Amino acid sequence: MQPLQNAGYDRAITVFSPDGRLFQVEYAREAVKRGTTSIGIKCSEGIVLAVDKRTTSSLVEATSIEKIFKIDEHIGAATSGLVADARALVERARVESQVNKITYSEPIRVDSLSKKLCDMLQMYTQNGGVRPFGSALIIGGVYDGVCRLFETDPSGALIEYKATAIGSGRSAAMDIFEEKYENDMSLDNAINLALQAINEATEHETTAKNVEIAVIKCDDEKYTKLSQDEVQAYIDEVISEDESEE
Amino acid sequence: MQPLQNAGYDRAITVFSPDGRLFQVEYAREAVKRGTTSIGIKCSEGIVLAVDKRTTSSLVEATSIEKIFKIDEHIGAATSGLVADARALVERARVESQVNKITYSEPIRVDSLSKKLCDMLQMYTQNGGVRPFGSALIIGGVYDGVCRLFETDPSGALIEYKATAIGSGRSAAMDIFEEKYENDMSLDNAINLALQAINEATEHETTAKNVEIAVIKCDDEKYTKLSQDEVQAYIDEVISEDESEE
Amino acid sequence: MQPLQNAGYDRAITVFSPDGRLFQVEYAREAVKRGTTSIGIKCSEGIVLAVDKRTTSSLVEATSIEKIFKIDEHIGAATSGLVADARALVERARVESQVNKITYSEPIRVDSLSKKLCDMLQMYTQNGGVRPFGSALIIGGVYDGVCRLFETDPSGALIEYKATAIGSGRSAAMDIFEEKYENDMSLDNAINLALQAINEATEHETTAKNVEIAVIKCDDEKYTKLSQDEVQAYIDEVISEDESEE
Amino acid sequence: MQPLQNAGYDRAITVFSPDGRLFQVEYAREAVKRGTTSIGIKCSEGIVLAVDKRTTSSLVEATSIEKIFKIDEHIGAATSGLVADARALVERARVESQVNKITYSEPIRVDSLSKKLCDMLQMYTQNGGVRPFGSALIIGGVYDGVCRLFETDPSGALIEYKATAIGSGRSAAMDIFEEKYENDMSLDNAINLALQAINEATEHETTAKNVEIAVIKCDDEKYTKLSQDEVQAYIDEVISEDESEE
Amino acid sequence: MQPLQNAGYDRAITVFSPDGRLFQVEYAREAVKRGTTSIGIKCSEGIVLAVDKRTTSSLVEATSIEKIFKIDEHIGAATSGLVADARALVERARVESQVNKITYSEPIRVDSLSKKLCDMLQMYTQNGGVRPFGSALIIGGVYDGVCRLFETDPSGALIEYKATAIGSGRSAAMDIFEEKYENDMSLDNAINLALQAINEATEHETTAKNVEIAVIKCDDEKYTKLSQDEVQAYIDEVISEDESEE
Amino acid sequence: MQPLQNAGYDRAITVFSPDGRLFQVEYAREAVKRGTTSIGIKCSEGIVLAVDKRTTSSLVEATSIEKIFKIDEHIGAATSGLVADARALVERARVESQVNKITYSEPIRVDSLSKKLCDMLQMYTQNGGVRPFGSALIIGGVYDGVCRLFETDPSGALIEYKATAIGSGRSAAMDIFEEKYENDMSLDNAINLALQAINEATEHETTAKNVEIAVIKCDDEKYTKLSQDEVQAYIDEVISEDESEE
Amino acid sequence: MQPLQNAGYDRAITVFSPDGRLFQVEYAREAVKRGTTSIGIKCSEGIVLAVDKRTTSSLVEATSIEKIFKIDEHIGAATSGLVADARALVERARVESQVNKITYSEPIRVDSLSKKLCDMLQMYTQNGGVRPFGSALIIGGVYDGVCRLFETDPSGALIEYKATAIGSGRSAAMDIFEEKYENDMSLDNAINLALQAINEATEHETTAKNVEIAVIKCDDEKYTKLSQDEVQAYIDEVISEDESEE
Repeated sequence: MQPLQNAGYDRAITVFSPDGRLFQVEYAREAVKRGTTSIGIKCSEGIVLAVDKRTTSSLVEATSIEKIFKIDEHIGAATSGLVADARALVERARVESQVNKITYSEPIRVDSLSKKLCDMLQMYTQNGGVRPFGSALIIGGVYDGVCRLFETDPSGALIEYKATAIGSGRSAAMDIFEEKYENDMSLDNAINLALQAINEATEHETTAKNVEIAVIKCDDEKYTKLSQDEVQAYIDEVISEDESEE
Repeated sequence: MQPLQNAGYDRAITVFSPDGRLFQVEYAREAVKRGTTSIGIKCSEGIVLAVDKRTTSSLVEATSIEKIFKIDEHIGAATSGLVADARALVERARVESQVNKITYSEPIRVDSLSKKLCDMLQMYTQNGGVRPFGSALIIGGVYDGVCRLFETDPSGALIEYKATAIGSGRSAAMDIFEEKYENDMSLDNAINLALQAINEATEHETTAKNVEIAVIKCDDEKYTKLSQDEVQAYIDEVISEDESEE
Repeated sequence: MQPLQNAGYDRAITVFSPDGRLFQVEYAREAVKRGTTSIGIKCSEGIVLAVDKRTTSSLVEATSIEKIFKIDEHIGAATSGLVADARALVERARVESQVNKITYSEPIRVDSLSKKLCDMLQMYTQNGGVRPFGSALIIGGVYDGVCRLFETDPSGALIEYKATAIGSGRSAAMDIFEEKYENDMSLDNAINLALQAINEATEHETTAKNVEIAVIKCDDEKYTKLSQDEVQAYIDEVISEDESEE
Repeated sequence: MQPLQNAGYDRAITVFSPDGRLFQVEYAREAVKRGTTSIGIKCSEGIVLAVDKRTTSSLVEATSIEKIFKIDEHIGAATSGLVADARALVERARVESQVNKITYSEPIRVDSLSKKLCDMLQMYTQNGGVRPFGSALIIGGVYDGVCRLFETDPSGALIEYKATAIGSGRSAAMDIFEEKYENDMSLDNAINLALQAINEATEHETTAKNVEIAVIKCDDEKYTKLSQDEVQAYIDEVISEDESEE
Repeated sequence: MQPLQNAGYDRAITVFSPDGRLFQVEYAREAVKRGTTSIGIKCSEGIVLAVDKRTTSSLVEATSIEKIFKIDEHIGAATSGLVADARALVERARVESQVNKITYSEPIRVDSLSKKLCDMLQMYTQNGGVRPFGSALIIGGVYDGVCRLFETDPSGALIEYKATAIGSGRSAAMDIFEEKYENDMSLDNAINLALQAINEATEHETTAKNVEIAVIKCDDEKYTKLSQDEVQAYIDEVISEDESEE
Repeated sequence: MQPLQNAGYDRAITVFSPDGRLFQVEYAREAVKRGTTSIGIKCSEGIVLAVDKRTTSSLVEATSIEKIFKIDEHIGAATSGLVADARALVERARVESQVNKITYSEPIRVDSLSKKLCDMLQMYTQNGGVRPFGSALIIGGVYDGVCRLFETDPSGALIEYKATAIGSGRSAAMDIFEEKYENDMSLDNAINLALQAINEATEHETTAKNVEIAVIKCDDEKYTKLSQDEVQAYIDEVISEDESEE
Repeated sequence: MQPLQNAGYDRAITVFSPDGRLFQVEYAREAVKRGTTSIGIKCSEGIVLAVDKRTTSSLVEATSIEKIFKIDEHIGAATSGLVADARALVERARVESQVNKITYSEPIRVDSLSKKLCDMLQMYTQNGGVRPFGSALIIGGVYDGVCRLFETDPSGALIEYKATAIGSGRSAAMDIFEEKYENDMSLDNAINLALQAINEATEHETTAKNVEIAVIKCDDEKYTKLSQDEVQAYIDEVISEDESEE
């Protein structure tokens, strides 16, 4: 990125550069890349969302570091980037879910919700007077027994993944997924894989206290956060195994 | 493109340069040129739309890479450029189609829909506070037994083609069309030609998994996506034949 | 045109330069000058509109290159400049015509329509947040048996002509008109003159396929497009004669 | 006018320069100075308006070069500067006249109309988002038997004259008025004086075809355009006499 | 005033410079300083307003050079600076007077009116999208037998004077007032003093034709303009006396 | 203050500089520092407000130099900075007082009024399209027998003082207060102290004519301006004593 | 922070820099860092809020230096940064609390209130025409017997702490908390810890007069300010002990 050469095209909102890029959108993506690592994995039994929530101070209440959010009974989201932007997006997602429930008397589809959010994100890249959102979301959920896992980005682009990661550890996590992901993984294996990836992305600093995991199972279609003890159990299994591997 | 010499005329939205050009529109076209290749062919039996949907990662759900969209029963669109902009345009096209159906109790004409979209695109190049759309669309459909194939561009210009291509492989694909296109091709031949063009545009990396094809036949006027097996059958025919040719 | 010396006065919309010029309007005129050649001739028997519609590719459906438009039963327009801007203007002209018909139960006068369009064009040069239109129109029509032929420009100026041309070939065409135009020409002669002018403006590349001609006759007051065969007949006469002249 | 020294103060709309000048207004005046010459004379018998309407091409319908406008039965205006701006002002003047007639059941006073127009002109110099009008008007009329002759300028200033001129020939015309104008001139003499002034301003190129004259007489209070023959008669008298004088 | 050193602080509307000045307001004051001289004097018998209305051309109807305005029966104003801005302010003052009369069934107080105007002037220095008014007003009037004389400036500041002057001759006139003004002057003496001041300010070019005087007497509380003959009488007395003094 | 180094951060309204400062607000404070000196003292018996109202010309009606304002029966304000801004603030304060009286049938509290004004001042520093107010107010009043003395600044900050000063003489006056102020002063002593401070701030130029004093006593809760004679009496006491001291 | 290198990205509101930062938000954080130190501690028995309210002048009424605010019966806030911005935020918080009480007939939850404020803060970083708030808040309260302690920042980020500090002394205070904070502290110990931290942050200048402490106890859920005597008692204990420690 060369600020001096691009001077002029990247300052105004929603303006193209000579090579057809929207710099403000690319810079917003940088805000996501600077964020903590968040992970989503889709497996045969459901969706796993996992986030790194390390804090710099022991005085912080770890519960207030919200990076995984329940959107609706059957949908969750893991976020990265500017935390206030992420919270605003999550708030919007919750409203959309409720509106859908009230209007159609049934829960919102995971893909419908994701598209609605991305439509809004796109508008923030095309209209003046606002800036793009500096956050990405991994949206996972189950609808009619089918698991879906989407990733949004500041441009409003929407991609469905089997397993994905956002934030500063994306590259490390994706390498692990490329190597070890299997379509027919059990939920337990998926959680283990998520922990391995987070551990790698955080340079082996992952503990039960600074990771948070939520799952949405195919059968009950319910968003559930794992307790710290449950996380600990998985960590004991994964990290030690992982360490011994090395 | 020389940013230093044009300094000043290309930054503000909707402002002319001394030689009568709208730089923001030209830069939006660059966004299209950087996109993946999408193709449309009109033949005696119908319309063929084909897109390159290669992904960089095996973790991506290929189905989520949407570049061909069903607009209405009888109309489809292939897109290139900024994906979120394209989705916003497609969404608009679908709304226009439904509004027409409700208002006049009949499906929208392919040319009417294309013009409506281009009217909107033009407004995004003339009014302040917005940027032009960074996407092009190939809109194909059948109305009253007549096939039509249009290409929109960020300026709002609209051209009807016998065969056309947008995105980074446009030049390679158009060369093939200029050489091999025939007005009275059968649908099978048109699909074969589309695959050849995509294959050329993607530097021979086309497989049944990373190409998507939709057809709208003159007789039933229905948009239909080809299954991966159907695509494979055509590829077997085209690519091998193509390779043997060289 | 010296961008460096004018720096500052020509960037903002609707701002005067020290010598009292509106640069944005002048630059919009450049967009017209870069366009294809369009021609209008008024003769004793009616109006002739003719346009150059050469395309760079044989894959383009020539019918989609619209440069002559029917505005109402008795009025047509030939355009040059940015095609999307021209289409937006034509759309507006059609609406004005219909509004007039509904309000007053009679067709709109050719001069009233032209003035209404120019009033709108002027507003686009005086108010902030928009840019001038980058298109010119030659509007021809018959009302109460009287032929009228107007030319609009991006500033909103309106001039009535006996014969005029817009676009890149304006100069070549006007030279021919100055030399050969006669007030009491027959319609046949006017069409021949139009073809000579287009042929000159396109450097002798005019064929029946890449020129389009529309006439509005004084007696029936109906806009009619000439078929390709009819155009061919005139071309045979004009071009051969023209060649033999040289 | 030194653009380099004034850099910054003259670009933004409605901003003062350090010496208390509004550059945009002064630049708009330049647009008037670049316009064709228009003249107004008040005499004991009525008002004379005269304009130079030479065209560069014989193909232009001279009648479409409108520089004298009938505002109401008893009021006319001669314009100079940007023609589309002038037409917009005239349109406004006509609306004000009609509104007055409907509201008060009597024609508008000449001074009331002029002030209303100038109020609008002033607002275009003080509010953001618009530019000043690049046209001046000479408004002449008769109300209750009294002749009035006003000149508006882009700042919204309003001055009443016995005889005045706007446009590129203002200086030449005013010299003639200063020398030859008499308060108790007859209408014939006033027309002769107007023609002398126009002839001088156009460097002796005035003919009956390229000048247009309108009069509003004190007795009938009606705006009347002179026919080309009537103009010719005056010209024969004035120009020959004028030539012989030299 | 050093434009180069202040660059940046003085361009945007309503922005402070580092030393706490509002340049746009100061530049508007320059517009007043470039204006013609206007004078107001308060004496025991009433208010005198006097203005210099010299014109550069004998063709101008002197009556149209309005610099003294009747605001209401009992209030007048003398103006300097941009004439169109002054007229807009006067128009506003008249409306405020009428509104007061209708609302409270009594004439507006001189100080109330002046404050209302200054409130508006202040808003034009604080809100974006407008520029300050480039005019100053001397407002004089009588209410309940008490004479008041106010001066407004572009900032919205309001000062009451015994005698004051605005425009290019302010300094010369104020010197005369400082020397010769007496609280218990008669109206005649006040008029004489006003003429002396105007004469000094115009470098002894004052004649009955190019000066205008209005008085509001304490007893009848009526705004009255002096006829040219009345002015001449005073001039004969003052100027000759003045000349003989020197 | 170094304009060259801060270039860019201090021009736009409501924008932070890299070190977290709002330059526009700081520059507005400079406008206050350039103003005349105003003083407020709270003592056991009430509030004293005093202002320097020297004028440069004897022609100014000293009564029109308003720097102390009665806001309500029980509240007064002394101002410094831009006079028109101050008047606008005072006007607002009066409206708030009346609204409170009408709504709650009792006078407004001194602190409530001060906070309401500061809320408005803050909004003028955070929203675009306006500039901060260039004035400070010392608001003094008595409510329920309790004296309060507040100072507002352009940022909207609000501080309660025992004794304070604003304007160019603030520093000199505050030194005197720090040295001589006592909590249990009588009103007479407070007035004497105020005069000493003003005298110091004006470099010993204070006379009964160019100082204005208002008091609000604890017992009657009424705002009262001192007559010039009363002021003279205090001055005789203070200044002579003061002189003899030196 | 290097203003020269970042020039351009940090001036416009709500625009990203190439590395994904929002400079205006970071500069607003600088405003907080320049503020006085404010502290919040959560202990088993309740919440302690403490602020440094030293003033530079003895003439200031210390009570008017408001840095701790009661938001509702059960919630308080300690602020740092721009004081007018902080007051505006507190005002908003109070309104939200009342609205909640009226709408749901029960007090607002501490976390709900904090999130509502942060939603507003985020909007001030994403929409044009406003600047971010230059203040941070420590919000503490008790709801249903549970203590909560939140910190907001200008970006709208929200973190829950056991103990935290904002303003210029944050670093010094946090060091003390990291060393000495215990989850099961009594309220007395928490107050002592707060005083130690403030004392450290103010470089041992803390006295009962320039510190302010408020507590919300778990059992009665009431916001209570400590009297100066109470504060003195704690100080005697802490500071002396603290001094003797050193």
